[in-house]
Amino acid sequence: MAKIVQKFGGTSVANPECIRKAARIVVSEANAGNEVLAVVSAMGHTTDKLISLAQQITPSPTARELDMLLTTGEQQSVALMSMAIQELGGQARSFTGGQAGIITESKHGSARIEEIRPAPLESAMNRGEIPVVAGFQGITTNHELTTLGRGGSDTTAVAVATAIGADRCDIYTDVNGVYTSDPRIVSRASRLSSISYEEMYEMAHTGATVINDRAVSLAKEHQLPVRIRSTFWPEDKGTLVTELSNTPEHSICGITLDLNQVWFSWQMSVNNDQNSKLDNVASLFLRLNELNITADMVMLLAREDEPLQELVFTVEKSAAKRTQSIIESQNSQGSKLLLDDKLARISVISRRLNGKPEIVATVFDALHQADIPVHMVATGDLRFSLLTPKNHAENALNLIHQHFNLSDPNRN
Amino acid sequence: MAKIVQKFGGTSVANPECIRKAARIVVSEANAGNEVLAVVSAMGHTTDKLISLAQQITPSPTARELDMLLTTGEQQSVALMSMAIQELGGQARSFTGGQAGIITESKHGSARIEEIRPAPLESAMNRGEIPVVAGFQGITTNHELTTLGRGGSDTTAVAVATAIGADRCDIYTDVNGVYTSDPRIVSRASRLSSISYEEMYEMAHTGATVINDRAVSLAKEHQLPVRIRSTFWPEDKGTLVTELSNTPEHSICGITLDLNQVWFSWQMSVNNDQNSKLDNVASLFLRLNELNITADMVMLLAREDEPLQELVFTVEKSAAKRTQSIIESQNSQGSKLLLDDKLARISVISRRLNGKPEIVATVFDALHQADIPVHMVATGDLRFSLLTPKNHAENALNLIHQHFNLSDPNRN
Repeated sequence: MAKIVQKFGGTSVANPECIRKAARIVVSEANAGNEVLAVVSAMGHTTDKLISLAQQITPSPTARELDMLLTTGEQQSVALMSMAIQELGGQARSFTGGQAGIITESKHGSARIEEIRPAPLESAMNRGEIPVVAGFQGITTNHELTTLGRGGSDTTAVAVATAIGADRCDIYTDVNGVYTSDPRIVSRASRLSSISYEEMYEMAHTGATVINDRAVSLAKEHQLPVRIRSTFWPEDKGTLVTELSNTPEHSICGITLDLNQVWFSWQMSVNNDQNSKLDNVASLFLRLNELNITADMVMLLAREDEPLQELVFTVEKSAAKRTQSIIESQNSQGSKLLLDDKLARISVISRRLNGKPEIVATVFDALHQADIPVHMVATGDLRFSLLTPKNHAENALNLIHQHFNLSDPNRN
Repeated sequence: MAKIVQKFGGTSVANPECIRKAARIVVSEANAGNEVLAVVSAMGHTTDKLISLAQQITPSPTARELDMLLTTGEQQSVALMSMAIQELGGQARSFTGGQAGIITESKHGSARIEEIRPAPLESAMNRGEIPVVAGFQGITTNHELTTLGRGGSDTTAVAVATAIGADRCDIYTDVNGVYTSDPRIVSRASRLSSISYEEMYEMAHTGATVINDRAVSLAKEHQLPVRIRSTFWPEDKGTLVTELSNTPEHSICGITLDLNQVWFSWQMSVNNDQNSKLDNVASLFLRLNELNITADMVMLLAREDEPLQELVFTVEKSAAKRTQSIIESQNSQGSKLLLDDKLARISVISRRLNGKPEIVATVFDALHQADIPVHMVATGDLRFSLLTPKNHAENALNLIHQHFNLSDPNRN
């Protein structure tokens, strides 16, 4: 008998028919003799619909009230999922984040889980019930409702799994695992039977949407095995996310695409002395950090003898306006700010990147031969990313995928 | 400066435009120097939509999970209403029933409020905030979410008003007060400037939908003045619900119509001895009481020398199936059960009923002259009710209204 947490994303509970399907998965895992706990997201596009409702009231809803609104989405799902499990003869009991003891900090809209007090979940399981827990949400010690930010249901699932000492966390979604690239674009993408936490983190962080990157970090921290699998083909075991040492050795693990990055180039005027320029840069990043905005592909071209000095980076589209106004509030005469939202970020994930710099060279060569422009490149420990015009992105993705022979499950 | 609770029903917050309108009423009352607390229902038909969603999952959702589902409706409204008040420059803070300290018994679907712990509401008001409280819901001491049953938002408003020591509770709805009859049917119905708690209770109990009857009882118990008024004409003071001694003396206060009663006739067979027949009746009413089903117009025709003895009553349509199965489970051979859902209940509300039995006679006479059949009559302290075929109901209502000259505001 194993203790298993099953997480069902929005597409897995999009309508009553899907909810019934998901409930059958829960019940069959329980009937197989396992202790099961389900974590559920809001139905389909509920969260987006609620945000649009709020925006019909005010262009800038306060974060507290937005959390009050959005947490209803998952609360509806857990109620319906529990009903569906009960309808199948299972014992189920729904829990809001607060009822499940998910205590967060009070940062509305992107609260971090501080602690889980799993006693109510454990009592339910001891009574033979299947707890159905609302993902994406928690409660502060002051009884305020909070949300964990986008992708937060994965984090809920992993955190709850850790708190109750689960043997495994299954992330049910609309695809049957992690692919070497997005199969909707790269038709020959192959499914990975396993992937390391580190590689999964980079894939998730750069565009793979099957699991949230923070959830992957948390799973690694607690060495919790995670499976990414499909609600629609539950017999398929999907992809196991586990320690590096347990996964096959590949040069390249996968290639991701992100169409939601906006490129910034801030050219600072000569009127600023070098110190104030660095001040500018420091205070920009301080402010971005406060707002939970991640800048990627950061590059500073600061040469003493140049008239203009340039800071280059990308941020997510949703953060672009806020980033722009921070810079404009600091901008002095003669400075220039360029934005480009027509670039795609392609990232190659490889644990061998540092050992094999020729990987980068090979990619460049392949794209160059196909006349695909590369705007900018940045490398990290486990990935390198490049920017190319969006209209070249799908072609580039396929070319790189083919070049490294990622369709072959026996490659290395 | 007064302390005022304002309650906005579903039609008053049906969409973002309505919510903005309601928020303007809240803010203008606060700007006039009053301390304001708002209680809000779910938007428009949200509750019905959620029930239908549940029924797509299972024909008989458990009461606990249904409460988990339904409480999201008001939670969405309070968030949106708070945003709308903030957008107008007001300070607002939304509260779920639980956050507002509304403690109920654990009877899901129709929980009674046991206690209100108003400290969080009072702290908010002391900080100058307008609390926006979810109607219709509460929390048990075990942190279970409960609902108060249909019309429960009115009860929330009155109970919260009492707990915070409000001077008045305004019930905002889509009509500008209490009318002598339903103005959609009786075009000459006149608006009452005031009505006593007792009369309002009877009106609400027998078909007037402007306020819930339990809320009226609660207001009377605490001598809380209540105003029924319109969200769409907020300058109109509406109808004041208050003590009998403060209201004008009318023979007839109003005439209500209820199209949702189902008539039951249970003819018990001679095979049963008298004792077991009375046992049947007792155990039926015991069971109805347990299920919170109210039987009205109850009559027992139990004559020793008759072969068949008959129990007659009406229940609400929503309770008819359950009532039927209770009876059928007790039914013995030779007994007969008749149901009729084609009858309308018309009730005449009068505080002078006992003093003036001719009122009943006059009504009979008027209907008889117009060839309107009367199926059955029952009288109480403040009302008498009759059943007539639904297709005669509107005509009957107008006739009686005209007969007592209720269109004339100076009548007595």
